[in-house]
Amino acid sequence: MKSVVIIGAGNVAFHLTRALLQNTINVRQVFNRTLSKAQELGEANNIKYTDKISELEKADLYIIAASDSAVEELSHYIPYDDTLVVHTSGSLSTKILKGDYRKGVFYPFQTFTKRKALRYEEIPFFVEAENKEDEDALYKLADKISNEVHRVDSEKRRKVHMSGVWASNFVNHLYYVAQSICEEAEMPFDVLRPLILETANKIQDMEPLEAQTGPAKRGDSIILEKHMDLLTDSRQQQLYQLLSDSIKRTYQND
Amino acid sequence: MKSVVIIGAGNVAFHLTRALLQNTINVRQVFNRTLSKAQELGEANNIKYTDKISELEKADLYIIAASDSAVEELSHYIPYDDTLVVHTSGSLSTKILKGDYRKGVFYPFQTFTKRKALRYEEIPFFVEAENKEDEDALYKLADKISNEVHRVDSEKRRKVHMSGVWASNFVNHLYYVAQSICEEAEMPFDVLRPLILETANKIQDMEPLEAQTGPAKRGDSIILEKHMDLLTDSRQQQLYQLLSDSIKRTYQND
Repeated sequence: MKSVVIIGAGNVAFHLTRALLQNTINVRQVFNRTLSKAQELGEANNIKYTDKISELEKADLYIIAASDSAVEELSHYIPYDDTLVVHTSGSLSTKILKGDYRKGVFYPFQTFTKRKALRYEEIPFFVEAENKEDEDALYKLADKISNEVHRVDSEKRRKVHMSGVWASNFVNHLYYVAQSICEEAEMPFDVLRPLILETANKIQDMEPLEAQTGPAKRGDSIILEKHMDLLTDSRQQQLYQLLSDSIKRTYQND
Repeated sequence: MKSVVIIGAGNVAFHLTRALLQNTINVRQVFNRTLSKAQELGEANNIKYTDKISELEKADLYIIAASDSAVEELSHYIPYDDTLVVHTSGSLSTKILKGDYRKGVFYPFQTFTKRKALRYEEIPFFVEAENKEDEDALYKLADKISNEVHRVDSEKRRKVHMSGVWASNFVNHLYYVAQSICEEAEMPFDVLRPLILETANKIQDMEPLEAQTGPAKRGDSIILEKHMDLLTDSRQQQLYQLLSDSIKRTYQND
């Protein structure tokens, strides 16, 4: 890809722009409907920016890095046919892109926070395109950024995306539940942070199946009952029961 | 504490012995019912070891670092009255300790794997004793190892322990579910590892409430339905629904 234009200025756009520039890809311009956001991203990286469709420059690749609900509308803005347009969503098909250009997907599998530094080479990328040539080009581009690039169709990408909902969104919610229980014991969230980090660290060179510990794994029904008694929220009780049952069933043949 | 004897030779005993020795606490001896395990721990740290109760040396503190189900039996073995005996369990009362000695708890709040190095100063410790003097001594001892020491009664300690079940045991099980979904898409667990680590890293300087992202947080019912269709296991469907509802409810007033 000789030139890239980024459409969007949120967390994903921010980190993708940086990752591309760090790998000496020519990011020509950033477009965002809110000028101040386009400006912030553009100025931070010393690249052009605009909020006007009429000013959109010609490029080999347009990356629409926006929330799922905004992708379709933004896809109408690109006025060129002889180019490749991709979105960065884990769950949308290429068909969401409404234009006569060639279409694809460039999905980075990570949770992005603007102010947090990330090692881009460790972010898995999933690429897809309507034709082999474009897919090869997207693969090569992702391969410049990352050590882990996969070609996947939409169905597989959706599954990968859903696995991320479990491993990140749901996990974060369990952190929240844990925090609320800790606070009932008048303990700050700080006491949970080292445990949370070590639990994630542990499976960096182990499989979750062998890393599992705790009362449900041991089949310790006395503790399980005591914990059910300690819980006051009925949704938390249901979750505790269901998660414990699921763990027990996973190890029932041990 | 002038001298300590460790009862047990599992993961917790292994790391506690190291943490104490690194802080120049005199660990006199390790006792374990399986001699080979006592020997392994003793020789690794250049301290005495035994599998015989009759050889148990006199010390100021005995730390029973064993699984919950073994604590009571081991507590009978200590033949001295004028000493302090503690266990390291998050869920057991001091009353589980059956002897005429003074009793307490020395609970390190972390998940321990033998071969994995840990920063002991970051592990929160929760101490409890039947009398103030012993509690002070346990606090001072934990304070030598760690930057985060709390005095808690049994009820609060049980809540802290349960919060750990959510933040570590249940979280690890979600990693396992995520892995199984990823494998349905013929993707290795490796594609999830960076996301898992970043999700845990993120809340090291953020609160889970502000770190939450994903379809349930956004109230994106189209994705939620698609994910329910992708799931083939009924328990996973129930879990998905319950976790999503719980997230939605957490943010419903936003």
